[in-house]
Amino acid sequence: MDKENKSLDKLETRKILLSGVKPSGHPHIGNYFGAMKQFVALQDDYESYIFIADLHALTIVQNKEQMNNYIYNIAVDYLAIGLNPEKVVLYKQSDIPQVSEMAWIFNCITTMPFLMRAHAFKDAEAKNKEINVGVFGYPILMAADILLPGADVVPVGNDQKQHVEFARDIAQKFNNIFGKTFKLPEPMIFENIGTIIGTDGQKMSKSYQNTIELFATDEELNKAIMGIVTDSKDVKDKKEPEKCNIFNLHKLFSPDEELKDLRDRYVNGKIGYKESKEVLLKNVVDFIKPIREEREKIQKNREYILDVLENGGKKAEKKISEKMEEVRTKIGLSLK
Amino acid sequence: MDKENKSLDKLETRKILLSGVKPSGHPHIGNYFGAMKQFVALQDDYESYIFIADLHALTIVQNKEQMNNYIYNIAVDYLAIGLNPEKVVLYKQSDIPQVSEMAWIFNCITTMPFLMRAHAFKDAEAKNKEINVGVFGYPILMAADILLPGADVVPVGNDQKQHVEFARDIAQKFNNIFGKTFKLPEPMIFENIGTIIGTDGQKMSKSYQNTIELFATDEELNKAIMGIVTDSKDVKDKKEPEKCNIFNLHKLFSPDEELKDLRDRYVNGKIGYKESKEVLLKNVVDFIKPIREEREKIQKNREYILDVLENGGKKAEKKISEKMEEVRTKIGLSLK
Repeated sequence: MDKENKSLDKLETRKILLSGVKPSGHPHIGNYFGAMKQFVALQDDYESYIFIADLHALTIVQNKEQMNNYIYNIAVDYLAIGLNPEKVVLYKQSDIPQVSEMAWIFNCITTMPFLMRAHAFKDAEAKNKEINVGVFGYPILMAADILLPGADVVPVGNDQKQHVEFARDIAQKFNNIFGKTFKLPEPMIFENIGTIIGTDGQKMSKSYQNTIELFATDEELNKAIMGIVTDSKDVKDKKEPEKCNIFNLHKLFSPDEELKDLRDRYVNGKIGYKESKEVLLKNVVDFIKPIREEREKIQKNREYILDVLENGGKKAEKKISEKMEEVRTKIGLSLK
Repeated sequence: MDKENKSLDKLETRKILLSGVKPSGHPHIGNYFGAMKQFVALQDDYESYIFIADLHALTIVQNKEQMNNYIYNIAVDYLAIGLNPEKVVLYKQSDIPQVSEMAWIFNCITTMPFLMRAHAFKDAEAKNKEINVGVFGYPILMAADILLPGADVVPVGNDQKQHVEFARDIAQKFNNIFGKTFKLPEPMIFENIGTIIGTDGQKMSKSYQNTIELFATDEELNKAIMGIVTDSKDVKDKKEPEKCNIFNLHKLFSPDEELKDLRDRYVNGKIGYKESKEVLLKNVVDFIKPIREEREKIQKNREYILDVLENGGKKAEKKISEKMEEVRTKIGLSLK
């Protein structure tokens, strides 16, 4: 990632940011601070394309109602946290048939051994020889997702950097054979965001059951926060804030002034864990309640959601179909 | 294949025939009598879809001009031999993006071991480990080609029956998961057509350099036919017509009366090979000259060819997009 990408100064022509969202059930605050929030924060600085990766999801979700719900809820989640569909192109991957078309074309310039190097495929195949061809072809469809709209940056976790590398390799291969067509995208790592810690001190993750859900009810928040694991120090014991699971969450939710005060009271033995949790709970509720209520409101407005996705699909299709025409001409499919 | 398919009686609702044509350079009379001619012969009896398999060709043809020429020339070839674009839907595979989309969806319900069973993949991989992913995914794209327009029959050689079997298997898998959606196609073998023998007595094939080109000039025909390999019998020797490479071609080109007369003269030692070749040449020229001239005429009419392909693409797209909408609804990609 070059310096230009890192700086968020507005450019005359903004760089293009692209990200795909896979189904993960209810998002938790780890998902929110780790990624979702960033898309909202960057929506003025980048020309942003956020797509609901329904074609990718199909490798796992093979049920009509589940797929419908998954698509709908992701749209609702992102709109509830403030993604502005006037600024960001929010669309369904499956509304852009050119993505599948491009994936087939990339199939024809990608060798089997190259694709078999993909981590995700190797991991999946190690567990189950009967995995579907979609899991194998995943990095190629993703390359099409990334390259067709001309993404400059793709926000990824460290474990997903290979996807962007694959897209770069495939772009270079295509450019070598048919002439310069695709930009080479860069991975974008949100470097100033540490790992979000769950209620038990491990990384927040559904698989550890240590999450705080982003759209939780007050009651659920109460249960999650009062259940945060601590050591057994008394109120008067001096405590290390950086080692406290409660304090870690204060850093995300409590205002700077209050955080400073809490830190002082921690190190001087002037606060107990119970009180710390109560302060945290209040601040978490203050943060989550409005977005949860916003979500409930949006959730009911099916027509609005479908409109957002339809409009996003049209905008994405317009952008992508131009590139696709260029591709079709370069590889000789177009006789015009 | 059931009896109903074999009989060519017109039905109230005609069955759907589908075939894809891959690039093979100049067609020879083996291609013509073995397949091309049949599509013309059947164009009144079936609702026929003939597509130029440009997306398949891309596994090999990775050059703009070559691809352009290949597409154009196949269209010209078929129109020259009498394919009526008012009766047959002649289209480019790449004009139907739904085919690639459907292929991705089939990827997600097809296991790796199943697809690795494909003969073509095993053969190709045995020769070259670096084959592209398109060669591997070929049977899936072909299943999409066949299933989306609802083909009842797919004319295939004996060596291609597996493609139709794959399409049937994939259709059944999809129907099992998402409910009855696809018809199961049947292979259609042109049983009354024997192997077309080349000028050296082997099966006519480009790789044996024993072909007679379908659109050859009179001079080329003269050279090919006068060069037919025979034994060294004299005019007066009795000859076995069935063992004679010249006579084999008479069966394709010479009228029944003349054929009967030739047979008599063969068995009674009343004709030499030279004369037999001269008679054959005349009949071959009589057959080929008009279609060659027709081809030359059509070849020059680029606008007409592009119109035919565009109209065919629109008709195919109309048919296919209806089925695709059904698919999208059944798998849950459509929220409407």
